[in-house]
Amino acid sequence: MTIFVTGHKNPDTDSISSAIVYAYLKQQLGMDAQAIRLGEVQDETAFALSTFGFEAPQFVEKAGEAELILVDHNEFQQSIDGIEDARILEVVDHHRVANFETADPLYMRVEPVGCTATILLKLFKENNVEIPANIAGLMLSAIISDSLLFKSPTCTEQDIAAAKELETIAGVSAQEYGLDMLKAGADLSKKTLEELLTLDAKEFGMGDYKIEIAQVNTVDVEDVLSRQEELEAAIYRNIAEKNLDLFFFVITDILNNDSVAIALGSQATKAEKAFGVNFEQNKALLKGVVSRKKQVVPVLTEALTEA
Amino acid sequence: MTIFVTGHKNPDTDSISSAIVYAYLKQQLGMDAQAIRLGEVQDETAFALSTFGFEAPQFVEKAGEAELILVDHNEFQQSIDGIEDARILEVVDHHRVANFETADPLYMRVEPVGCTATILLKLFKENNVEIPANIAGLMLSAIISDSLLFKSPTCTEQDIAAAKELETIAGVSAQEYGLDMLKAGADLSKKTLEELLTLDAKEFGMGDYKIEIAQVNTVDVEDVLSRQEELEAAIYRNIAEKNLDLFFFVITDILNNDSVAIALGSQATKAEKAFGVNFEQNKALLKGVVSRKKQVVPVLTEALTEA
Repeated sequence: MTIFVTGHKNPDTDSISSAIVYAYLKQQLGMDAQAIRLGEVQDETAFALSTFGFEAPQFVEKAGEAELILVDHNEFQQSIDGIEDARILEVVDHHRVANFETADPLYMRVEPVGCTATILLKLFKENNVEIPANIAGLMLSAIISDSLLFKSPTCTEQDIAAAKELETIAGVSAQEYGLDMLKAGADLSKKTLEELLTLDAKEFGMGDYKIEIAQVNTVDVEDVLSRQEELEAAIYRNIAEKNLDLFFFVITDILNNDSVAIALGSQATKAEKAFGVNFEQNKALLKGVVSRKKQVVPVLTEALTEA
Repeated sequence: MTIFVTGHKNPDTDSISSAIVYAYLKQQLGMDAQAIRLGEVQDETAFALSTFGFEAPQFVEKAGEAELILVDHNEFQQSIDGIEDARILEVVDHHRVANFETADPLYMRVEPVGCTATILLKLFKENNVEIPANIAGLMLSAIISDSLLFKSPTCTEQDIAAAKELETIAGVSAQEYGLDMLKAGADLSKKTLEELLTLDAKEFGMGDYKIEIAQVNTVDVEDVLSRQEELEAAIYRNIAEKNLDLFFFVITDILNNDSVAIALGSQATKAEKAFGVNFEQNKALLKGVVSRKKQVVPVLTEALTEA
């Protein structure tokens, strides 16, 4: 039986890279593993894939009969449709754990580091499997992407050390290659409104609420904000269609390492209060905030699960 | 802030031992970790503790302000009261994952092996911490207990290899010491009915149902069954008090490696069908069944979560 190795919906560079990389490792260990993806490959990821000579994994919509290995996520609502009925063999992830359940024991390796690829590097070593240069390049791309070139507060010493090791194996300069890769993903000028909202969007259950948090990276926040009126209309459509209680849109400036957030929906006021800043016209600057996982999700979770 | 390292309620030898052992490892790594227990120490565990010169960990009822490391379990209903509001730093476990959630990323190491101690042995090695003889003895005790001296289907090659290593460090014979330890825990003749039902009982959510599965090890199944009438009365009291849909009582013969099960409650018929044997007077012999985790929980989960 084929085993699908998959990252999350709206895949980012870590989700695509880690699926390819872990499928490769499992193949070396004799497993019939195949990397898949649950959505479109983004510009940043396409840059990484083409630099290191990989094709995008196959797009798969439903789990069907396949057994699953999840990388870079564990929450079912972020995963492949039909996961409730699938057998999950493994999880390798670096996020909080929630809305996840199996009937049987499994291999689950979750570590509080900045990137799934940092954990995968350990698994290569633990299994004594050599890392080819192009596989190292993908892993390095994932770490650069998740850590915004080591500037995000999610970035740990372990991620930096892993990146150093991978840089040598891949034969590229993390700083030079990394900035090119981030810039390739930060050009939002040709994106449609719907693309901006779905490029890197994740759904969360917090208490009784259904929340979507979308994030875009850019070198020109004002350019994105110039379309705020249309953006808000598109966000309200999303809220209505998915029955969301909050849509939180984070526009991250990758050069200055700040974000502007737009909060809409019935729980927007709670979200605004949670960050302790004034939202004007539904938006506010969140100084130093670049990480959804570390600086947005915990704040909103606490605000929305309070009694 | 103190960090509590705890196994599950109704602690077995793995839960008590792994709490002590992992707290020791974390202390060596500089953490202010303290092993605790969530229930009475059983005879088998007391034998292991006294053999290797340990006191039972402190009994703690509520999580309170402490941060938590969970060993040998992850499901909240099996854990310390108040866990919903506590910060969970780590989980080291070998069970299915369910009813578990954190607000933040954590370290979670779940592997499909027979015993938590087998994973802890890896963590000692990964952290380059030496294992003292008495700590090795506790880990060996945990593996012997969970694997019924390597006879349970949950026992993996990794558990056997770990036990071999620990045997040498601890300086005892696994076979000889192990049988003595199992026998120390298998004398049920002096137990009250309520003790039989709670010695090793775990609660599970399966679909919409609330299930309790209790297990006892014995060298004399008939002796336990001679009290079936009173046992059933006590089980019905449990069902009423806890509002259970099924109480599944497993009496395991550690010499012949079979079990007799008693099923009571509104979902008993489904449970009986699931095993494909005839239950007479609410009981049936389950040939070759010794593992709640591998041979009981998955069967009942499937039967009770079917549409």
